[in-house]
Amino acid sequence: MSARPLPIGDEVRNDFPILSRTVYDRPLVYLDNAATTQKPLCVLDAMRDEYLNVNANVHRGVHYLSQKATDLHEAARERVRSFINARSTNEIVFTRGTTESINLVVSSFCDEFMTEGDEVILSVMEHHSNIVPWQLQAARKGIAIRVIPMNDRGELLVDEFEHLFTDRTRIVSVAHVSNVLGTVNDVDEIVRISHQHGVPVMIDGAQSTPHFKVDVQSMDCDFFVFSGHKMYGPTGVGVLYGKEEWLDRLPPYQGGGEMIESVSFDKTVFAHLPFKFEAGTPDYVATHGLAKAIDYMEEIGLDRISAHERELTRYCMERLRNIDGMRLFGESEGKDAVVSFLVGDIHHLDLGTLLDRLGIAVRTGHHCAEPLMQRLGIQGTVRASFALYNTKEEIDILADGITRVSRMF
Amino acid sequence: MSARPLPIGDEVRNDFPILSRTVYDRPLVYLDNAATTQKPLCVLDAMRDEYLNVNANVHRGVHYLSQKATDLHEAARERVRSFINARSTNEIVFTRGTTESINLVVSSFCDEFMTEGDEVILSVMEHHSNIVPWQLQAARKGIAIRVIPMNDRGELLVDEFEHLFTDRTRIVSVAHVSNVLGTVNDVDEIVRISHQHGVPVMIDGAQSTPHFKVDVQSMDCDFFVFSGHKMYGPTGVGVLYGKEEWLDRLPPYQGGGEMIESVSFDKTVFAHLPFKFEAGTPDYVATHGLAKAIDYMEEIGLDRISAHERELTRYCMERLRNIDGMRLFGESEGKDAVVSFLVGDIHHLDLGTLLDRLGIAVRTGHHCAEPLMQRLGIQGTVRASFALYNTKEEIDILADGITRVSRMF
Repeated sequence: MSARPLPIGDEVRNDFPILSRTVYDRPLVYLDNAATTQKPLCVLDAMRDEYLNVNANVHRGVHYLSQKATDLHEAARERVRSFINARSTNEIVFTRGTTESINLVVSSFCDEFMTEGDEVILSVMEHHSNIVPWQLQAARKGIAIRVIPMNDRGELLVDEFEHLFTDRTRIVSVAHVSNVLGTVNDVDEIVRISHQHGVPVMIDGAQSTPHFKVDVQSMDCDFFVFSGHKMYGPTGVGVLYGKEEWLDRLPPYQGGGEMIESVSFDKTVFAHLPFKFEAGTPDYVATHGLAKAIDYMEEIGLDRISAHERELTRYCMERLRNIDGMRLFGESEGKDAVVSFLVGDIHHLDLGTLLDRLGIAVRTGHHCAEPLMQRLGIQGTVRASFALYNTKEEIDILADGITRVSRMF
Repeated sequence: MSARPLPIGDEVRNDFPILSRTVYDRPLVYLDNAATTQKPLCVLDAMRDEYLNVNANVHRGVHYLSQKATDLHEAARERVRSFINARSTNEIVFTRGTTESINLVVSSFCDEFMTEGDEVILSVMEHHSNIVPWQLQAARKGIAIRVIPMNDRGELLVDEFEHLFTDRTRIVSVAHVSNVLGTVNDVDEIVRISHQHGVPVMIDGAQSTPHFKVDVQSMDCDFFVFSGHKMYGPTGVGVLYGKEEWLDRLPPYQGGGEMIESVSFDKTVFAHLPFKFEAGTPDYVATHGLAKAIDYMEEIGLDRISAHERELTRYCMERLRNIDGMRLFGESEGKDAVVSFLVGDIHHLDLGTLLDRLGIAVRTGHHCAEPLMQRLGIQGTVRASFALYNTKEEIDILADGITRVSRMF
């Protein structure tokens, strides 16, 4: 009798010691992965090893440790390039996270290509990080924001999208996956339509890169942004991918060391890509950690991770649907790794707080997507979100917990 | 017979395991601390412990781990507040590092308070991170940059400074300590004079906070910026201190989660201080690491660190001065923890490379201060810079190494 291979969730849990801890004397059930994932030991070990054996500032030093640290940092850039299949490491800019990546593109793009009355198209399901930077530019220089609507299943209306284009449309910026609904937007189609109108597209991949294989060349987006800490990497590092032809045309965002060729008070010459966009000492330990997180994911296999998480999502929707008073938000085809819900009249905060007392970590509130809450006519939801280490047993604990808590009201 | 207390360098070396490693089969002599310092085990342990036991995204979660992570993050803010003696944690903004802190102030200050023809006063010894952000604004909106000159000892000319003020002067931004010359600028006097003209002051503390006690209330500066990684903390975290009255008046820098009260496509309300300036997931593990680095420094004692490093600097100047062909750059009174030099006609890169083969890590080049190099009439220097763990024996190895290498030419 041969042993059946473990479902992926069980197989990997020892790589994440925090999953064995208790909360209020109950086993932790960590279902807040869309906020941040836990980190495997190999990522933590790699960062500690770098600090203990290699640490030195990168790029500017001729000495041995600085060269070794630079090698690790630039190897991480190549690792990220291959992860999303960019053409060149010139197209990979390290940032502090998705939010900084978006702010960089918005600021530099608006400076160079947008004037008063020009328009950006967003969607109604964007995270605040893909709304507020545009609003700051609306206040600063009078650009206008147009919004792709969605249907009640949480799917963007592509026909409506086509009608939003005008001769003032300069850029489209849309989430790959909704952090509330789990909707996987048809970014290939969004890019195709935008390019028909001669308009470039930024895709917010914060909620897609943790869950399935992304190929920026196949998608043909012009900018793609994501964070390390939501995909098993450390806090403090994110990525901006941009097609070289676009990054070359954008002005620098921040000024400082690293991003210059030469400086004088009369004339400063900026560095070539990708350094033009990387002012100051990069978080070179975190980039190395991110590279190790990518190694970890690819060793398990993006396809396996994706299949496992989709099955968890399907199972969770099925279990929760049978709970009295359950309202599920997001019923799109092929939805991904996020389940948002409310039960009867119970406030999301109360529900989340009581689940926490059972050891179940879920997120509650507007999830930094208030315009989407307004569209749904609610103040907030409870959100369970999954990672490769979650199990069906944990979904059962969640479902039983919701049932138990909701009977208290 | 009672044991004499160890000099601080020897006493603490076991806290930094990397200092025991070899490079090219020779003991590492790490004298590149102005670029980045090594990290004590207590900092590395604290960050790993947080990942292994607490990790969750901060601020937005009701669940147990999120609250614990938020507590650590906000405790770090209080730790930083007390470290520089700010009035309130509202005045402590976490950033990616000094460079981002400066870019934030420059961008928001220029947006709100500067128009074409308005002037900023910098000094000739600024790091590129305090030059290029202003130049980006010069290109964007036509502000003008005026420059405080220095004498040949590397001291700013305060009389000349007074003459740079015009009715268009809006802000002054000056390094606390030169990263090339070690000059400790008289920031109290710079602030006093600027305030007499009704002009606010930003102080770049990247090279001062690692070395001596800073009190922003006593200094009375309006903005003060520094990095964690240059003061025994992790990469990826820095600080912007701003007087609350100024931060309140500045517009947000980046947009995203955390920095809003409410968002709709029609109207967005920004969060109160300090969150208004902190868009996106903060590097909450690094802030905790920074707090532990501050603990470490204060347990040893800032006064002891300062006295030890000044004695190393004095000793290094004395030893190097006796080497044939030695040219020392920076001879100010009370200079701090940095010794820059050239020997005869030897190129700084060659000298640094050969010292590296002896296990001595020094930095070579323009040190991101090209305008200062132009003032000195040179292309670059070799720079040795000190931390609390360095020893006189290491200075001897450096001096003997320079002598040995320079005889090869």
